[in-house]
Amino acid sequence: MERIAVCPGSFDPITKGHLDIIRRTSAIFDRVIVAVVHNPNKQSLFDLEERIDMIEHSIDGINNVEVDSFVGLLTDYVMNKNIKVIVKGLRAVSDFEYEFQMAMMNKSVTPEIETLFMMTGSEYSFLSSSMVKEVALLGGNIRSFVSPYVSEKLTEKINGED
Amino acid sequence: MERIAVCPGSFDPITKGHLDIIRRTSAIFDRVIVAVVHNPNKQSLFDLEERIDMIEHSIDGINNVEVDSFVGLLTDYVMNKNIKVIVKGLRAVSDFEYEFQMAMMNKSVTPEIETLFMMTGSEYSFLSSSMVKEVALLGGNIRSFVSPYVSEKLTEKINGED
Amino acid sequence: MERIAVCPGSFDPITKGHLDIIRRTSAIFDRVIVAVVHNPNKQSLFDLEERIDMIEHSIDGINNVEVDSFVGLLTDYVMNKNIKVIVKGLRAVSDFEYEFQMAMMNKSVTPEIETLFMMTGSEYSFLSSSMVKEVALLGGNIRSFVSPYVSEKLTEKINGED
Amino acid sequence: MERIAVCPGSFDPITKGHLDIIRRTSAIFDRVIVAVVHNPNKQSLFDLEERIDMIEHSIDGINNVEVDSFVGLLTDYVMNKNIKVIVKGLRAVSDFEYEFQMAMMNKSVTPEIETLFMMTGSEYSFLSSSMVKEVALLGGNIRSFVSPYVSEKLTEKINGED
Amino acid sequence: MERIAVCPGSFDPITKGHLDIIRRTSAIFDRVIVAVVHNPNKQSLFDLEERIDMIEHSIDGINNVEVDSFVGLLTDYVMNKNIKVIVKGLRAVSDFEYEFQMAMMNKSVTPEIETLFMMTGSEYSFLSSSMVKEVALLGGNIRSFVSPYVSEKLTEKINGED
Amino acid sequence: MERIAVCPGSFDPITKGHLDIIRRTSAIFDRVIVAVVHNPNKQSLFDLEERIDMIEHSIDGINNVEVDSFVGLLTDYVMNKNIKVIVKGLRAVSDFEYEFQMAMMNKSVTPEIETLFMMTGSEYSFLSSSMVKEVALLGGNIRSFVSPYVSEKLTEKINGED
Repeated sequence: MERIAVCPGSFDPITKGHLDIIRRTSAIFDRVIVAVVHNPNKQSLFDLEERIDMIEHSIDGINNVEVDSFVGLLTDYVMNKNIKVIVKGLRAVSDFEYEFQMAMMNKSVTPEIETLFMMTGSEYSFLSSSMVKEVALLGGNIRSFVSPYVSEKLTEKINGED
Repeated sequence: MERIAVCPGSFDPITKGHLDIIRRTSAIFDRVIVAVVHNPNKQSLFDLEERIDMIEHSIDGINNVEVDSFVGLLTDYVMNKNIKVIVKGLRAVSDFEYEFQMAMMNKSVTPEIETLFMMTGSEYSFLSSSMVKEVALLGGNIRSFVSPYVSEKLTEKINGED
Repeated sequence: MERIAVCPGSFDPITKGHLDIIRRTSAIFDRVIVAVVHNPNKQSLFDLEERIDMIEHSIDGINNVEVDSFVGLLTDYVMNKNIKVIVKGLRAVSDFEYEFQMAMMNKSVTPEIETLFMMTGSEYSFLSSSMVKEVALLGGNIRSFVSPYVSEKLTEKINGED
Repeated sequence: MERIAVCPGSFDPITKGHLDIIRRTSAIFDRVIVAVVHNPNKQSLFDLEERIDMIEHSIDGINNVEVDSFVGLLTDYVMNKNIKVIVKGLRAVSDFEYEFQMAMMNKSVTPEIETLFMMTGSEYSFLSSSMVKEVALLGGNIRSFVSPYVSEKLTEKINGED
Repeated sequence: MERIAVCPGSFDPITKGHLDIIRRTSAIFDRVIVAVVHNPNKQSLFDLEERIDMIEHSIDGINNVEVDSFVGLLTDYVMNKNIKVIVKGLRAVSDFEYEFQMAMMNKSVTPEIETLFMMTGSEYSFLSSSMVKEVALLGGNIRSFVSPYVSEKLTEKINGED
Repeated sequence: MERIAVCPGSFDPITKGHLDIIRRTSAIFDRVIVAVVHNPNKQSLFDLEERIDMIEHSIDGINNVEVDSFVGLLTDYVMNKNIKVIVKGLRAVSDFEYEFQMAMMNKSVTPEIETLFMMTGSEYSFLSSSMVKEVALLGGNIRSFVSPYVSEKLTEKINGED
């Protein structure tokens, strides 16, 4: 039986911390689907296609990982795909609390789906997409936080918006 | 390829919270090994054989779960068994901190091993072996926290020790 | 002497978690006033009348509970009513921190007023009005989180706003 | 109907932080019982009689407060007294977690009993009996943490034990 | 060698909690620069000049403290000034987490710069600029949270904006 | 004026995490005193002389750092030395809470002394003397956590105690 896991997120943009979780998940499941949430009500710096493009560049070379996107509830997406496992990274106590509440809410709606958590690598424990965007916006160097490709795209996006 | 996960602990004694994690792990992995730590330097209420016996009674009927024990470092045990995944339950922020530190330390020693976490079901989020023992010692009713078999063994143990 | 407690909130909309706190408060005080904050500077999904209406439907049948609303500081409202006790629910560490700061600030301004906290029932520890609204907006089923009446009103509101 | 609250603890010894909670509880309930736990399995610096004596000195002058002691489970004691409310102080996140788990466990065993929490006054948010004892043992000045009477008893106890 | 520390923030407006940190920093460093961030992308109630003016009124009489402002990354500002130490206040767990992530991110970009933290005095542990603004907006008394000068400016600003 | 800081601890034994804090402190103060607490009432694996010896080996080559020891309250030791600054590392939320309470208690007793905190480097955020001892006791490899000299001493100690 094939063991599939979903790594969900908005990936606006994908960081080295996200990539660390995706790689480690791909080592313990047969197949990993990186599922990008498309929420028309929430503003993102990059549109869905750009976010998917940056992920595809980042996971290039990992055989059992693919990218997909979804609208609506994550649990509905996962149920419809007939998948049972979601994998997410935990960085800090505040992550824990939010994810704990989400996992409990999801469990009460769809008990068949299981959410598993991985502790983020210590070198990425401070990393978040929003911090990366803030640093880039203030003119800081983000090359140790994202891949060269994402760094380039982020610089383009910020300059283009000025 | 067979996907195996280890659920480690001292299980002194096994609670309904532990059993919830074991059951849910058994639904997403091919095989689950409940690994009871045997630490001669730490005192436990039940000896190793008693703890294993209570787990075996509790997991009776779940096909892909077995019980084992180990001495020394969990990571050494897991490496020697050629397993890559540990699964643990998280109840609260204090769990998170301790487990976060353990997962980071283990990762720095044996990067091949991955620790996955599950949020404990909300009805078990207050449960721990030590609280169960304390309640039992004070004469309280523990039947909603452990199986009837464990409840009986705990009562025997406490009365026998008076 | 009559013991009165105020249960304040924005109740946008009232959830089963809120109702749990109100019911339990009504069992230990002579009278409970559910006080809905009306803040013209903050956007709410439901207007004040709708929020009050949903609370009144929810508390129907609890004799010693009534609904009221206020503008401005909660402590001013409570002082003017000559009440001494506020009761609030605590779900998680993040609640604790925020409520701790609010309680200290209130205490420093109006030391006569006491804020008491109840731990939210474990089955509601993930519940918040904002999560309920987000799930409803994404097309999810919210019937286990709010009363049938609130569920209906929320569905109407979301469809009407599309 | 008389509204009674129990303030439980080991009070080894009573601090100004405890007294703050007791005083504030006495202002919002008709009667307050300070219930000292007597646990023969746990070591305390002061024996039960000494702890009760120091509380009685501290609450002298508050009309509606009395002292009592109990053996066994707090919930059994409270049920037998036909009381419905326990009041406890919360100082910090670690308190919150422990008390949250205790409150949930108690709720699952005896749903009739309600535990209410008060945030400790900011000037006492660092105070605990064990810190007071540690400071006293190291020769520090504890007069701002406990009453003069308790300070004297603590000094006697420590000198007498050398 | 002169030991200089930077106390950064948006100070919108400066509170007694900020002033407590600045004063205590000035007692252990030779010189302190209060550095006001000017972020054109973030809305503030007071503009940069007003915020600087209120700080200057507040630090009047402390010899070794001066005010400055910066645009962009704090670490760039500090590096360009050839300073090595940033001092910040910590009020609560949520502060800790955010500051921990910022300190780690800064450390990974500019390892030469050190961030030191002070625990906020207990009487200010609930204080934040945003809470002060919210209380003022709701008509509450803020005189125990900010200096008389800031209180006056805040009242003017709020009335002027109605 | 010479700026001196004290880095206190039990250092049983000194880890790379401790050394990171000491090094970074030595870069921003004129002189650093590593102050080893000697508490006859608390058991330590290494005696005072051994702990001092291991620190001296570790700080060899850092000019402005020296080692000392004290009995009793840290604040008394620091006051008697006429020093005003204590520097400590913070690893996690649980550290924060404990240190917050200690800092407040110390502040209330000796307001002249200031405690400054540094966030531990992310690669050491899981490290503690007690975890190192536990890993060593279970036969694990501790060479990435302590210096070669400390590793050797710890191995000797553990073998000698069997």
